[in-house]
Amino acid sequence: MLHQTLSHIEALDETIMAQAKQRIDQLIKPQGSLGILEAFAVKLAGIQKTTMPKIQKKAIVVMCADHGVCEENIASAPQIVTWMQSKNIARGITGVGALAHLTGTKIYTVDIAVNTHECDELVLSKKIAFGSNNISKGPAMTRDNAIKSLELGIEMAYHAIDQGADLLGIGEMGIGNTTPTTAMLCAFTGLSPEEITGVGANLPLDRVPHKAKVIQQALLTNKPLANDPIDVLAKVGGYDIGGMAGVIIGSAARKKPVVIDGYIATLSAIVACALEPKIKQYIFPSHHSEEKGAKAANDYLGLNPCLHMHMRLGEGSGAVLGFHMLEAACAMNQHMITFEEAGIGVV
Amino acid sequence: MLHQTLSHIEALDETIMAQAKQRIDQLIKPQGSLGILEAFAVKLAGIQKTTMPKIQKKAIVVMCADHGVCEENIASAPQIVTWMQSKNIARGITGVGALAHLTGTKIYTVDIAVNTHECDELVLSKKIAFGSNNISKGPAMTRDNAIKSLELGIEMAYHAIDQGADLLGIGEMGIGNTTPTTAMLCAFTGLSPEEITGVGANLPLDRVPHKAKVIQQALLTNKPLANDPIDVLAKVGGYDIGGMAGVIIGSAARKKPVVIDGYIATLSAIVACALEPKIKQYIFPSHHSEEKGAKAANDYLGLNPCLHMHMRLGEGSGAVLGFHMLEAACAMNQHMITFEEAGIGVV
Repeated sequence: MLHQTLSHIEALDETIMAQAKQRIDQLIKPQGSLGILEAFAVKLAGIQKTTMPKIQKKAIVVMCADHGVCEENIASAPQIVTWMQSKNIARGITGVGALAHLTGTKIYTVDIAVNTHECDELVLSKKIAFGSNNISKGPAMTRDNAIKSLELGIEMAYHAIDQGADLLGIGEMGIGNTTPTTAMLCAFTGLSPEEITGVGANLPLDRVPHKAKVIQQALLTNKPLANDPIDVLAKVGGYDIGGMAGVIIGSAARKKPVVIDGYIATLSAIVACALEPKIKQYIFPSHHSEEKGAKAANDYLGLNPCLHMHMRLGEGSGAVLGFHMLEAACAMNQHMITFEEAGIGVV
Repeated sequence: MLHQTLSHIEALDETIMAQAKQRIDQLIKPQGSLGILEAFAVKLAGIQKTTMPKIQKKAIVVMCADHGVCEENIASAPQIVTWMQSKNIARGITGVGALAHLTGTKIYTVDIAVNTHECDELVLSKKIAFGSNNISKGPAMTRDNAIKSLELGIEMAYHAIDQGADLLGIGEMGIGNTTPTTAMLCAFTGLSPEEITGVGANLPLDRVPHKAKVIQQALLTNKPLANDPIDVLAKVGGYDIGGMAGVIIGSAARKKPVVIDGYIATLSAIVACALEPKIKQYIFPSHHSEEKGAKAANDYLGLNPCLHMHMRLGEGSGAVLGFHMLEAACAMNQHMITFEEAGIGVV
């Protein structure tokens, strides 16, 4: 199912994009002066195959998973917080919920691999495992389960789209998940854990060297293959990261724009784009995470997020904030008139 | 009237700000992880004197003025465009209008010094002059008129606030106005025109050296006094810049937050803060303008705008986009619960 989905992903419609750009250049403003809003509008035109793209229903899919590597004391919060916060996210009372309220965004909270036997009526129960295994001792999951996490993400994207979403975002909840994220980034880029390991959710600074050593151990133990993104995901990744990558793939397959969040979501985007480079055309960056490795992750994928909010919460909070920029791009197209309509020559 | 207004501006309420920060630190997220949203929420608390600040009605005041220095061929568009675009701005069909539609923002379009005898039913007619004088040959305006421009801005802020606005933004329309803006920035900082003169509204790159020479001539002719902001405004500034500075002063005097736009608006903020340093506490930056001198202007005032949109349109377009970040800060406070309410220990 994964490979069939990937094989159906199409490049954007360049004819429509050229027409959209031509129209934007005729709006009553100096050409190019709306910067990224113009670029976003052109990209949206290519995705939606219309020079007047619209956004009508926004959804954020939050993938919740636990990480066996928490045994190594790489996080400041106990693992039980993953499940507690998953329930809170589903109730709209966390950071992403506050921004979802503001922007009219529907939240899909997915238990893809939380380490609990509990269920919750507001959390979609799609558990593949009770968390990943401890990556410092062996692979996070089997290759089969890595593929399952991607396929579940695809299904969740389709579910949201079937319920009307025409703009998707991704987020995660998983105590300890900056550790596998950093391990994956090291695997893809060749950077060392010492260079890019950060504090995650307020790990005391003096414990960061230990976290970096655990990541180094995970790389030595598992030897992930940089040119095989599923191998990297399976050996040193996590279910939340795989699930978000799947949402990106599913969005692209169904020709919907997808806004990524910060550091962890960027690694999901790296996995998705490594599987099918055309996917990058459907991805919109949102904010530049404050987490230490974020810049290296963005640079690796060639993204330059426009929001510099010093945020590092996750949950998709940055992605939902970024939705506004895509809506602004559509508003530019919808409400501005052209020089011809205004009776002014082009400035 | 100006000096009386300035003398009434109060510092923010630090007790409320400390209480607001304490509450934000108890919301269910790692402390500090919402970055600038947290800082904005604390600042808004200090302005509104409540730990739960709210934004209910947003307004943008767009100051429209002509600039005599256009005689020196420093702009690519003809001067008549100032008036044509003023009328378009008032109709909500320009860049700022599109974003005002999206965000439910009321636009006040003010003719403070447009070089036209026409009136328009949607443009507030508050003309002080038919544009500024050519700064390369003498002062832009008299000191009295500079003070009038500030006082008119104060009145416009009061007018918007009296009509219910509790969040203000500033914008401008004035063909050629990056020339006086750059002259003012040189006067305040001692930087040379060669270092910071940019293309404004798409001036061809090969004409930028000429524009820098005109600015150099304006500085030599007028010798503005860096430690006297009204002198700088009168000698090498413009009415739009003075009017926006007045809106900032009026907002602070009435304890309302005010969001500034890009390069030109930042010079207005520099004038306002030089007149009364406490005003800076009421100012929120929005976007980092693409215009060459913007970084120097932000650095001089110690601002670090969070939106990096590569925009350089003016009209207050960046300010209106920035409104969303203040609303997001309020949403965080309103919708997130505390760790205690969630039954989780502080992470």
